[in-house]
Amino acid sequence: MKSEDKKPYLTTKNLTPENQESPIHFLNKWQTPIKYFYRRNHFPYPLFSPHHFWLQITGHVSQPRFFHFYELLSMPTRSLIVPLECSGNKRAHFIPKVYGEQWEEGALSQGKWTGVPLNSLLKYVGLTNDAQEVVFQGADFGNRTDVKEKVSFERSLPLEKALHPDTMIAFQYNDKPLTFKHGYPFRLIVPNWYAMASVKWLRKITVINHSFKGLFQTNDYVYYPYKSRDNDSFPVTIMNVNSLIQQPLNLSILDTGAHQVKGIAWSGQGIITEVQLSFDKGETWLQATLNQLPNQPYSWSSWFFDWKVDNKGEYMIYARAKDSSGNVQPLTPFWNRKGYGYNAISKIAVKIE
Amino acid sequence: MKSEDKKPYLTTKNLTPENQESPIHFLNKWQTPIKYFYRRNHFPYPLFSPHHFWLQITGHVSQPRFFHFYELLSMPTRSLIVPLECSGNKRAHFIPKVYGEQWEEGALSQGKWTGVPLNSLLKYVGLTNDAQEVVFQGADFGNRTDVKEKVSFERSLPLEKALHPDTMIAFQYNDKPLTFKHGYPFRLIVPNWYAMASVKWLRKITVINHSFKGLFQTNDYVYYPYKSRDNDSFPVTIMNVNSLIQQPLNLSILDTGAHQVKGIAWSGQGIITEVQLSFDKGETWLQATLNQLPNQPYSWSSWFFDWKVDNKGEYMIYARAKDSSGNVQPLTPFWNRKGYGYNAISKIAVKIE
Repeated sequence: MKSEDKKPYLTTKNLTPENQESPIHFLNKWQTPIKYFYRRNHFPYPLFSPHHFWLQITGHVSQPRFFHFYELLSMPTRSLIVPLECSGNKRAHFIPKVYGEQWEEGALSQGKWTGVPLNSLLKYVGLTNDAQEVVFQGADFGNRTDVKEKVSFERSLPLEKALHPDTMIAFQYNDKPLTFKHGYPFRLIVPNWYAMASVKWLRKITVINHSFKGLFQTNDYVYYPYKSRDNDSFPVTIMNVNSLIQQPLNLSILDTGAHQVKGIAWSGQGIITEVQLSFDKGETWLQATLNQLPNQPYSWSSWFFDWKVDNKGEYMIYARAKDSSGNVQPLTPFWNRKGYGYNAISKIAVKIE
Repeated sequence: MKSEDKKPYLTTKNLTPENQESPIHFLNKWQTPIKYFYRRNHFPYPLFSPHHFWLQITGHVSQPRFFHFYELLSMPTRSLIVPLECSGNKRAHFIPKVYGEQWEEGALSQGKWTGVPLNSLLKYVGLTNDAQEVVFQGADFGNRTDVKEKVSFERSLPLEKALHPDTMIAFQYNDKPLTFKHGYPFRLIVPNWYAMASVKWLRKITVINHSFKGLFQTNDYVYYPYKSRDNDSFPVTIMNVNSLIQQPLNLSILDTGAHQVKGIAWSGQGIITEVQLSFDKGETWLQATLNQLPNQPYSWSSWFFDWKVDNKGEYMIYARAKDSSGNVQPLTPFWNRKGYGYNAISKIAVKIE
C-alpha cells in the first residue's frame, strides 16, 4: 500500500445545490488542483447550451454586441494566481451560530486563471458617459425562499473595479480549459473580492447608470450586524485579512518533540506582511516564516513555524496575519446575522502526550 | 448537467493515518457502498503480503493451526447486515471538547458481511478448559505516543462473544471481496460492539486464559469519566442506542411548507422500537415512522416524519431512539475524557424563511 493511495476528498456540505469544501488542511500547493477546488452553488447546475459560447455586452454602451468564445480566445490574455474565498468561509465558527451553509475552513482555493481583461471588452463596446455599474449575469437560475419567480444569479461591480486590468473573463484554470462546474466557458474573476463576485457561467454583461438592486447584493451578501434588525448593514465586497492553520489539526494529540505549525494567509487589501503565532493566548507573539510567490500580488502566502515542545499538556496555538494596508486579524470575529467575512485570529488546541 | 453528476465524498479527517467519514447525511441505502464506508485507522496501512492469506489460531487450544483463505472460502458461510460504528463517532459534539479525531456523525456505515462464524474455526482447533478470552491481531502496526516500541493493533473478546454464531471472520462485503482498506483478506465482524472490536487484516487469533491487557483495551477504548483522574473507568464495548437526523441539515434555511425529517437509528442492545421527535425542546414527543429490514436484527432502522411548517422562524428539532432493551437516548451525553460513545438526543436547528 503506497501512501499515494491515501488521498483527500472534497467535503460534502450539501448536494441541492452542490456545495463542497476543499480539503485545504491536506493541500500544500500554490495552485489548488481543480478536483480539490471548492464548489459553491446557489442553484442547480445550468444545462449547458451552445448559447453559452456567446457573451453578450449591452446596456449603457455605444455598440452593444455578442462576443464568441473563439473571439475571446484570439485576444491578448492575462494570467494571474488568484484565490477565491466564499464570504461564508468559516461560518461554522461564529458564536452564536448563524444559519446557512456551515462552511468550515475550506471554502477557499486558488489557482492560475487565464482570460481576457474585462476592460478590453468594455473598450470594444464603448461605455456611455452615464455608465455607473456593470452587472454580470450567470446562466444559473432557480428558486429563492423570498421571491416567487425564478431568479438568475446576478452581481454588479462599480465601474472602477470592472475596469481594473486584473478583472478578467477567465476561460482557463491552471492552464487547462475551465471545467463546467467552475463556470465553463466563462467565469468572471474579480481579484481581492469575495468569490460571489466571480460570476460563473457568465452570459450577459449589462452596463447600467444606477446602482444595482439584485437580491444577491441587497439581500444576500450583506453584513447585518444585528439578529433581528437590518440597521447598519453594508455590502460584502473585499476579502478580510485572514489565515488558516493547516497543521497540526485542531484537537489533535501529538508526541513531545519537534512539530511544524504551518498554514496560509491572505487578504483582499494587500499582500501579507507578517504572520505571528502565540502560544500564550495572545500575550506574546512570535514571527512565522513567510513564503510568497514572486510577482503574484493576489496569491495567498504560506507560512510555517518550527515548534519544539518538551512538556506534556494541553496547548493553544493562535495565528494572526497582517497585510500591507495595516489590517490585522481581530481577536474576536465581527458577528453578523448571515455569517459573512469571518476572520478572527485562527486558533487550535493540541494535546501533547 | 445531470443530477447524477453531483455525488458526495468521504470527509477527510486525517491522512496520517487515513481517517475519513462517510457522507451519511446524503446516503439512503441499507447497504453503504464500499466507497462511502468510513475509514478509521490507527496506523499506516499494512503492506500486503501473501502471508495475510494464512490465519493463525493458537494459544489455549488443542490443535493450533493455520487456516488458508481458500479453506475459509470452502466452509459454510453466514451473511448479515451489520452496522459498524466507531466509538468516537460524534466526538466533535462533546462539550467541553475532547482531544482526538473530531468525528462528526459519519463514523458509521453498514452493509452485508459474509464470512465464516468464528465458532466454527474455534471448534476445529478445540478450546482448552481454561480458555477465557480470544485475542485478535491485525497486520497493522506502528507507533503510539505512550510506548517506544512499535505495536500491533490487538483486541480481545470474552469467550461468550467470541463463540456467538454471528461473530464472524468476514471476507466479503456487499457480495464482493472485501477491499484492502477495509481489512482484506479477513476482517473480524463483531455485531453490536463498537467497531474497534472488528479487527481488520486479521492475522492471528490467540486464545488466552487470563484477561488481555493490550493498549487498545486498557488505555484506549476506555471510558474515563474525569478530565484528570482515571477513577471509575470502564471499557468501551457495546454500541449505545443512537440516532441521526440525516435531513434537514443542521442550521439550514428552508421554505415554509412540507418537509420530511428523516434519519436512521441503531443500538447494540436490541432492535429499535421507536423514534420520537420533539419540536418544543423535549416537552412533547411525536412518533416517527420506522422502517426496518426483515430478519436483520443488527441493521439500523430508518425513520421519517412529515413536518408541515406554516410560520417563519427558528425551530429546534430533537430526535431520540428507544431500543428493545428499554434504552433511550439521554438528553445530555455522558462526557468522558477520550470522547467515546456519544449518544445524546440528536438535535438540529433550522430557520424557516
